[in-house]
Amino acid sequence: MTLPTVAQKYRQHSPLVFCLTNTVVTNFTANVLLASGASPAMTDLPGEAGPFAAVASAVLVNLGTPSTEQMVAMEEAVLSASAAGTPWVLDPVAVGALPVRTDFARRIVQHHPTLIRGNASEILALAGKDSSGRGVDAADTVQAALDAGRELAKEHECVVAISGEADAIIDTNRTVLVHTNGIGLTRITGGGCALGAFNAGMLAVREDPFEAAIAAHGLYGLAAEKALAASTGPGSFAVAFLDALAATEPEELENLKYEELNHG
Amino acid sequence: MTLPTVAQKYRQHSPLVFCLTNTVVTNFTANVLLASGASPAMTDLPGEAGPFAAVASAVLVNLGTPSTEQMVAMEEAVLSASAAGTPWVLDPVAVGALPVRTDFARRIVQHHPTLIRGNASEILALAGKDSSGRGVDAADTVQAALDAGRELAKEHECVVAISGEADAIIDTNRTVLVHTNGIGLTRITGGGCALGAFNAGMLAVREDPFEAAIAAHGLYGLAAEKALAASTGPGSFAVAFLDALAATEPEELENLKYEELNHG
Amino acid sequence: MTLPTVAQKYRQHSPLVFCLTNTVVTNFTANVLLASGASPAMTDLPGEAGPFAAVASAVLVNLGTPSTEQMVAMEEAVLSASAAGTPWVLDPVAVGALPVRTDFARRIVQHHPTLIRGNASEILALAGKDSSGRGVDAADTVQAALDAGRELAKEHECVVAISGEADAIIDTNRTVLVHTNGIGLTRITGGGCALGAFNAGMLAVREDPFEAAIAAHGLYGLAAEKALAASTGPGSFAVAFLDALAATEPEELENLKYEELNHG
Repeated sequence: MTLPTVAQKYRQHSPLVFCLTNTVVTNFTANVLLASGASPAMTDLPGEAGPFAAVASAVLVNLGTPSTEQMVAMEEAVLSASAAGTPWVLDPVAVGALPVRTDFARRIVQHHPTLIRGNASEILALAGKDSSGRGVDAADTVQAALDAGRELAKEHECVVAISGEADAIIDTNRTVLVHTNGIGLTRITGGGCALGAFNAGMLAVREDPFEAAIAAHGLYGLAAEKALAASTGPGSFAVAFLDALAATEPEELENLKYEELNHG
Repeated sequence: MTLPTVAQKYRQHSPLVFCLTNTVVTNFTANVLLASGASPAMTDLPGEAGPFAAVASAVLVNLGTPSTEQMVAMEEAVLSASAAGTPWVLDPVAVGALPVRTDFARRIVQHHPTLIRGNASEILALAGKDSSGRGVDAADTVQAALDAGRELAKEHECVVAISGEADAIIDTNRTVLVHTNGIGLTRITGGGCALGAFNAGMLAVREDPFEAAIAAHGLYGLAAEKALAASTGPGSFAVAFLDALAATEPEELENLKYEELNHG
Repeated sequence: MTLPTVAQKYRQHSPLVFCLTNTVVTNFTANVLLASGASPAMTDLPGEAGPFAAVASAVLVNLGTPSTEQMVAMEEAVLSASAAGTPWVLDPVAVGALPVRTDFARRIVQHHPTLIRGNASEILALAGKDSSGRGVDAADTVQAALDAGRELAKEHECVVAISGEADAIIDTNRTVLVHTNGIGLTRITGGGCALGAFNAGMLAVREDPFEAAIAAHGLYGLAAEKALAASTGPGSFAVAFLDALAATEPEELENLKYEELNHG
């Protein structure tokens, strides 16, 4: 399997990505999935989340703005996805900085996520290390979170993706840095959160999850580079990014710059 | 009454459209209403939804992402609208595919909606027929859902609007197909949901609901055609669509292409 | 302290603005904060809102679409902000028009907001006067709400900002009218709500709150004027506004047109 092939399968299958996510980014997340060729669907209701997670192509659980009821639905979705073999992504937004979601994240991460995606501070905090995140912003470098990412990958037998100046993709025995210029994505809300959903969709292809994550981060970053060149500020960047995501072809992943690191 | 006259009245009256809708499309829905000349207002709180439905110009109930509390507010709004004679629209998002909202939709549809708007799979499911929807996507053709739409229109004495390759508008004894190119609307989130709100606003004019629905679907589709021509992808389409909706004049409905079908 | 200096400090400090706001405008609010140089963060969860309000740079409480749980979190945030000395803004959306939030607003306003921002109808209603708002729209003039604003400012020892044809900024002994052309902001959703968040961020600079509010309304209005000139409708206005907000320099406040009124 090569990266372009994974991305081609994504477009062919148009995965149905069930997102339990935060109220700030629901719209952008759905539009990112649509632009990239997938089909988004949301419900945060107990009694629906479980059955839907069993039939969806993949599930995203993003802890940005949990409500008591949404957390019940999330736990239901995660148990159901895990039982049905549906790939699921955990995005531990602001874990470490905010208490309720930190406890919740540490509990649901036990249910075998296929991938964990966060910034460096969130990955450090989820692994139980000291972190310096404030709110949703990372205050730690990707480099500083690599060991924490490797611990999480090993403990939960999953892929860990750390977003930052370069994105690190880690599994139980490999570490890769994906080099794209994603600076524009840090200037709009939802840049990271929607990437969690895109990862979920790429996992739905059911190829190597490590390659799926590289393909997701790579395509996303390539589209962000195009959008940066085509825009004059954060408003026009968000618009150009969706256009670029729809126009970026799987083959462009052939030229993606990434480097394999010594795995710790 | 002619279609342009209905649309002119909409602009003159600037109807106050009370939307109980899903978290993915709240922003886009409000912007569609504003761009088209109406005034959006949202609250999902029991104790507010009832009184507000009695004084609003029209009400939209969209089942995209219900919470337990929102469903209480929805039922309150629907009872109040029905008692006060406020026109209301039911958008049965993902009914048939997800269980809790399916039961809920079948219960509140008993309270005399003025119009039901959905895709073919949702209309089939609401009418109790087999459907093949997955999440929010229709997997059935408008043609296949015409009879189900007619049954719903007859049973609830309401208008039924089915969105698809062409949009079908149905009442107890008429069926019309509105032909516009709305393909752009399927590539962004909220295209259909916001149309439910636009229908509600058009019903607030208090003319023939059947004509109101044709006017809503017609103006919406004409704006979508302009936006498609003016955009280069889904991001720029959404922006151009709001601009086009604000710029499309009621008189343009004179050239709307629609055909009357034999009513079953 | 001069207006440009307040705005420069805002950019230097990049305040962490904790927003408890409505579901319609979360995304736009976060993007306004990011574009202007601040850092947005949202949580509506009891147990998180209190601790976070104590460490955030400022807090926004916007009553647009309260849920039962969000109101618990809001009260927790307000008590904590008040105790910790964190500046906080109350945006009493639709107070007067809708009952539950009206009672709630009158209760939490007792906890020493640093600033209250609303349209004329909301300010009149919060002060217990007759108002003619319907939903979120003002049906009263700023002029008609000046006395109500002064009463609120005196009673709660806070700044009151009234958005309208010109924006009035009021404290216990001063009244200023800020003159910018903000018409574009009334044609998109969230124009006023995001301004509440921007005010909160500007208060985080911890200079004179009265000047902070003038700086916030001034910069916001200047960006809106640029966006109006650069756009062709409400869709492109929203995009251009975010671009303009990111590009507007603190020094431009030197040319802001405002007038001091006789303070009642």
